[in-house]
Amino acid sequence: MEYKIALIPGDGIGPEIVSEAKKVLDKVCEKYHHTFTYSEVLLGGASIDVHGVPLTDEAIATAKASDAVLMGSIGGDAKTSPWYKLEPSKRPEAGLLAIRKALNLFANLRPAYLYKELEEACPIKKEVIGENGFDMIIVRELTGGLYFGERKTIEENGVKKAIDTLSYNENEIRRIAIKAFDIAMKRRKKVTSVDKANVLDSSRLWRKVVEEVAKDYPEVTLEHMLVDNCAMQLVHDPAQFDVILTENMFGDILSDEASMVTGSIGMLSSASLNETKFGLYEPSHGSAPDIAGQNKANPIATILSAAMLLRYSLNLDEEADAVEAAVQKVLTDGYRTGDIMSEGCKKVGTKEMGDLIAAAV
Amino acid sequence: MEYKIALIPGDGIGPEIVSEAKKVLDKVCEKYHHTFTYSEVLLGGASIDVHGVPLTDEAIATAKASDAVLMGSIGGDAKTSPWYKLEPSKRPEAGLLAIRKALNLFANLRPAYLYKELEEACPIKKEVIGENGFDMIIVRELTGGLYFGERKTIEENGVKKAIDTLSYNENEIRRIAIKAFDIAMKRRKKVTSVDKANVLDSSRLWRKVVEEVAKDYPEVTLEHMLVDNCAMQLVHDPAQFDVILTENMFGDILSDEASMVTGSIGMLSSASLNETKFGLYEPSHGSAPDIAGQNKANPIATILSAAMLLRYSLNLDEEADAVEAAVQKVLTDGYRTGDIMSEGCKKVGTKEMGDLIAAAV
Ligand SMILES: CC(C)[C@H](C(=O)O)[C@@H](O)C(=O)O
Ligand SMILES: CC(C)[C@H](C(=O)O)[C@@H](O)C(=O)O
Repeated sequence: MEYKIALIPGDGIGPEIVSEAKKVLDKVCEKYHHTFTYSEVLLGGASIDVHGVPLTDEAIATAKASDAVLMGSIGGDAKTSPWYKLEPSKRPEAGLLAIRKALNLFANLRPAYLYKELEEACPIKKEVIGENGFDMIIVRELTGGLYFGERKTIEENGVKKAIDTLSYNENEIRRIAIKAFDIAMKRRKKVTSVDKANVLDSSRLWRKVVEEVAKDYPEVTLEHMLVDNCAMQLVHDPAQFDVILTENMFGDILSDEASMVTGSIGMLSSASLNETKFGLYEPSHGSAPDIAGQNKANPIATILSAAMLLRYSLNLDEEADAVEAAVQKVLTDGYRTGDIMSEGCKKVGTKEMGDLIAAAV
Repeated sequence: MEYKIALIPGDGIGPEIVSEAKKVLDKVCEKYHHTFTYSEVLLGGASIDVHGVPLTDEAIATAKASDAVLMGSIGGDAKTSPWYKLEPSKRPEAGLLAIRKALNLFANLRPAYLYKELEEACPIKKEVIGENGFDMIIVRELTGGLYFGERKTIEENGVKKAIDTLSYNENEIRRIAIKAFDIAMKRRKKVTSVDKANVLDSSRLWRKVVEEVAKDYPEVTLEHMLVDNCAMQLVHDPAQFDVILTENMFGDILSDEASMVTGSIGMLSSASLNETKFGLYEPSHGSAPDIAGQNKANPIATILSAAMLLRYSLNLDEEADAVEAAVQKVLTDGYRTGDIMSEGCKKVGTKEMGDLIAAAV
């Protein structure tokens, strides 16, 4: 089959890791007789450098014309990057927020699980996690809430005051809840919906709509958890979670916490989906400008994001399985990039890791 | 000297733990020749049961007429408590928010540190934390942000929409920043200000004002950290933090995460202060309705909150030191309540723990 994939190399280590993921996708094409045609999209700092803005209409059009988007990472070092001198709406992350909105990517899926091979890297004690490790997926609403509410800075009697707005309507809540329950049906059938319903109106509406949606999924166990408690439980007992469903800002905080709890953030992929099969796939980690261009970055999160792309946007389950199995094989064989290196393993660079995984497909 | 202390026993284990803290305060009176007169204030579920509302004007007046307030914990079990059937503005936590506002308690201080004696209970691996443990204090803004912004639920074309507002003005940010820097001056002189300045206007104003305040404290190192990164860093490297300064909702999430990272939430005190010496002191943990009335609860967090009360509101540093030293001695002697029990230690109940600490003062 023929598919169109848009690539967003992005900033920092982005171009290197996307290039390794492409290597793996090329191998998939060869082995399974597909044709992927790639187009490049500039976003973030890379777009600012060329066009002066973090996202152009042309970039959106190219992304829309493709079956899916694979992205590296955007942004740079807040201390040294010239982009950070720009006003907020012109900075790299503004491009990321704008593309999420333009492509209507309301559902952000972020798996966080413990690799048996990488248990040593996990900061949490083994007796806290338990024998069976943990395996959760965070379903974060991505186009609403504080991120996209009205905001303004005004002056009242000479005193500046800044206002951000958090709002959700029933439809926005319903569609992300449905995603979470659909995913739970293919997993361990448990949804933990996280909110701050003891304080926020938006959380109370969230809870009500989630309960309505739950009625259509009698096999799924629904539990509600306050966000402050969830931040504790992720450290205290991560194994209790299957699917965590939450709004945009809470999801930002909790998914980063969860990824750090795994200890191997260089391994974690993510997908951002709209109502169709279309999606944008990217590693959960950042652009790590300090190691950019040094063949040190771990490309696995991006390669696993490419596997998610195959599965969710192209319906190529067998191919996705093959990529995931290839990553597993290379880990079992003892190959590691620096970030996940441990005694007795073989240390490799970005390119070698990409070669090994492509060869194992 | 004579002091007036208002006690809020509250719900769940609240009454038991406040009673042990009072025992310790009585011992302080005896030893240091002070007179503390106590008045009781009903808040939360305890007030709903008597007055039908979580906070009365009379309760506020009694609290205001005292030098400081010592509180147990409020709220109950969301699954079984009858209070949770009430509409949000009538529930226990509404009383807590209302008293914070009525007493202008804008500065919430929550220490989180690793007790040498309780390292086993810490969920984080020792090699992650390092040889010297960690010791941070979270300074959370407590009377602004999403907690106290306008909120409403409306209907647009038959679709419900809920709106919460996050706002801060320069004065609100300045006064909490000053608190954080003042505290840092007495500690390791580092402030980590946490915001989401890549998205929120309120966070950008926050950053600007914090930087202005920092100019008056040339000895203090200021660093800015995004909230998602901070949620990661608390797990990855808690020892990097001295004072964390943040807004209300971020502070709620991060302080609970930090307390769980210590592994001994039953030991952590907190203070909520206004512009004067007045403050409300309470344990960081909740009301644990499942063990209420069973002489199982750990009273130490409340006893250490009483020590903070002596120090911050009554200026009784020597007395506060004595209470903290008494807690330390009892731990060193190997006494533990169930929540912090480990092999080779002596297990005691709530009352026995209170007796031991009072005796050690
Ligand atoms: C860069 C930033 C705006 C973004 C977010 O907060 O959503 C990032 O943290 C993420 O999680 O993708
Ligand atoms: C009970 C709740 C409203 C409260 C808060 O969110 O502030 C609690 O979590 C706390 O941190 O004191």
